[in-house]
Amino acid sequence: MHTIPAFLLSMPGPSQGDLPVSVTLLLVFGTAKLLSEAFEWLGQPGIVGEILAGILLGPSLLNAIHPDATLHTLAELGAMFLLFRVGMEMKPTELLRLGGRASLIATAGVVLPFIVGWAAASAGGSPSVEAIFIGASLVATSVGITAQVLAARGVLDRRASQLILAAAVVDDILGLLVLAVVGSGARGAIDWERLAITGGLSVSFVLAALFLGAPAMKRLAPRLTRTLRAGESELAVAMVVLFALGVLAEYTGVAAIVGAFLAGSMFAESASRRIRDICHGTTELLVPFFLVSIGLKVNLHVFADSRLLLATLGLIVIAAASKVVACGLAALPLGRQEAFQIGVGMVPRGEVGMIVAQMGLALGALSNAAYSAVVLMAAATTLLAPPLISYAFRDEVPAAEGEEVLRLG
Amino acid sequence: MHTIPAFLLSMPGPSQGDLPVSVTLLLVFGTAKLLSEAFEWLGQPGIVGEILAGILLGPSLLNAIHPDATLHTLAELGAMFLLFRVGMEMKPTELLRLGGRASLIATAGVVLPFIVGWAAASAGGSPSVEAIFIGASLVATSVGITAQVLAARGVLDRRASQLILAAAVVDDILGLLVLAVVGSGARGAIDWERLAITGGLSVSFVLAALFLGAPAMKRLAPRLTRTLRAGESELAVAMVVLFALGVLAEYTGVAAIVGAFLAGSMFAESASRRIRDICHGTTELLVPFFLVSIGLKVNLHVFADSRLLLATLGLIVIAAASKVVACGLAALPLGRQEAFQIGVGMVPRGEVGMIVAQMGLALGALSNAAYSAVVLMAAATTLLAPPLISYAFRDEVPAAEGEEVLRLG
Repeated sequence: MHTIPAFLLSMPGPSQGDLPVSVTLLLVFGTAKLLSEAFEWLGQPGIVGEILAGILLGPSLLNAIHPDATLHTLAELGAMFLLFRVGMEMKPTELLRLGGRASLIATAGVVLPFIVGWAAASAGGSPSVEAIFIGASLVATSVGITAQVLAARGVLDRRASQLILAAAVVDDILGLLVLAVVGSGARGAIDWERLAITGGLSVSFVLAALFLGAPAMKRLAPRLTRTLRAGESELAVAMVVLFALGVLAEYTGVAAIVGAFLAGSMFAESASRRIRDICHGTTELLVPFFLVSIGLKVNLHVFADSRLLLATLGLIVIAAASKVVACGLAALPLGRQEAFQIGVGMVPRGEVGMIVAQMGLALGALSNAAYSAVVLMAAATTLLAPPLISYAFRDEVPAAEGEEVLRLG
Repeated sequence: MHTIPAFLLSMPGPSQGDLPVSVTLLLVFGTAKLLSEAFEWLGQPGIVGEILAGILLGPSLLNAIHPDATLHTLAELGAMFLLFRVGMEMKPTELLRLGGRASLIATAGVVLPFIVGWAAASAGGSPSVEAIFIGASLVATSVGITAQVLAARGVLDRRASQLILAAAVVDDILGLLVLAVVGSGARGAIDWERLAITGGLSVSFVLAALFLGAPAMKRLAPRLTRTLRAGESELAVAMVVLFALGVLAEYTGVAAIVGAFLAGSMFAESASRRIRDICHGTTELLVPFFLVSIGLKVNLHVFADSRLLLATLGLIVIAAASKVVACGLAALPLGRQEAFQIGVGMVPRGEVGMIVAQMGLALGALSNAAYSAVVLMAAATTLLAPPLISYAFRDEVPAAEGEEVLRLG
């Protein structure tokens, strides 16, 4: 009742050239779940299998799926729901309480990787703009992957987990500023006024959400839910807040998923079990699209060039080690084990590193070779992180009951 | 961590020209829920408000949203989940038991509207190909709207509701055949061989899903769920079956949402409460995109021409009356009340009528005026149906507990 067969309909549609929506859905979700299952049987985190599903379906191997608008939408929605769901486990007061330590961790995790990456690229013969961009690509953490692994292990309630999430919010703002500096620098002069506006807006947004939005929502949401007559009003209210914070985030320059995380934390105290279940289920449905779309960006053909391969491996080692060392040192007062947990939690670069790479390529600051190296670094740190995080949290007993519902992938 | 501000990134992205995903999400979902709430306060079905939200945001009034790939994906997914969720309330054995009566209802509801529409258009001066297309546009029922209203009232378990849904499956196949005849007729000669293949494939698909797929899944799904190691395996299995039947449906020519409905009925006996809740929540999230995208296709500027307006009003009356009379007569042996319930349940044409109109326009069979009239007819029957259905079912007490979770929008 919704589509008619292609041979009957010879006119341009919204998805012309792309696969039918249902085919994309089946291929992406089915392959992700199949490889996830295979990895679980091997005792590995299923999430690694889901990212590898993207590499398998992508240009390197089967070339079956291209990142089209359907996938883009579902991936973005998946990341938003994931962070919203995770945010629901973080009370705003808790986030603010951890703010100082988290800022320290985030700052260390931005400065050291940037310097080391820059220095290494310069030493390797990159032109100075390229070296700066490679440094910048090592800065930002992709919190989605870590959040998924922590949720799957049922350890979101640990202090280390909460510090990782709080630090990721700060990290996102710092990463935004680094990108702004580097990007405008590559174009010519750095626009300090714009930079100040960007910084001010993003910091105000986060603080306003936590200080004003959260207490307001805590009182308003239950009242709204009672007053509204349409069915499922609690869900409707939560979704409107989620989408609204996504929009605000985007316009203040912060990532939409940071907005989603803050929206989630606004409901940390008021959300019913039912809403948590529903958001969990929706996340479970959509996250494979997010993970596969990360894998799809990888092109393994780069590995044919052995010099580039070596340089890429070096970049991967630098990327992982610099984050673990910097964030771990900043968290050392909490004890060695927690410092290590926090360090590895900040390792994955995921789609953030890839965005920096695309920007560098578009500006002419990165060569094709450097672009490929950065994309592979982003994918590799993302694939490395889940086993590392599982290892770092191996002694933690998963929270029972209350968090059971959070065991994802 | 996921996006960077537009001023930093000056390169073509997947959503260039379109609104950012988060803005589309907020505008569509927020407006739909706002108008839904307003309609509930007025004692009207919220679903009407959600379709009107599409008209409000569309080209007639605000012109704020264009039907882009994001919306298309979410709308299609929303319709699939809606029908999957509804299918879960229909046991395959029940569907087959009702098959005879449902086929009679569907056939009557195809033949009479086609003949009346054709005759009226011819009498009104349409060329013969155009008259045939207008008749064809009156054929197919859009079951999504009816399903949503029945679910919202908690009366999916009534015989009349189940007959409507079963008849809609048969109606979809008949509509497909009518379209194939009309479409190839408009192109030149009718390709009878292809037509036989289309008919054979679609009928075999439905029968195979009900006779083979359903019993197999009933035994296989719980076993698979126990065997798989990854988290939420029951959900993953259900989703893979849903997407797979969507693909099979598309390739056999049946609509993806008919596949979704059949997939749902495969889980009617085995699905856990948790899966039902999750699918319900996901549906609740996605259905507004489906409803708004129907509204978006309407352009009220057509009403400026009073002759066209009159013709359109005539078409709307014919469309509604012919379905009620034809399906009602075929269901009369069940008693007057059920016959009326079934008749009004088959009234909405929704996106199906719009697809026929687009095809007619693309083939040059429909003039621009006739195209607009058909699109408005499809929207109007869709807006008329919810109050009519609510009225027809006014004496039915909603099912308690078990179906409570189904009270949508």
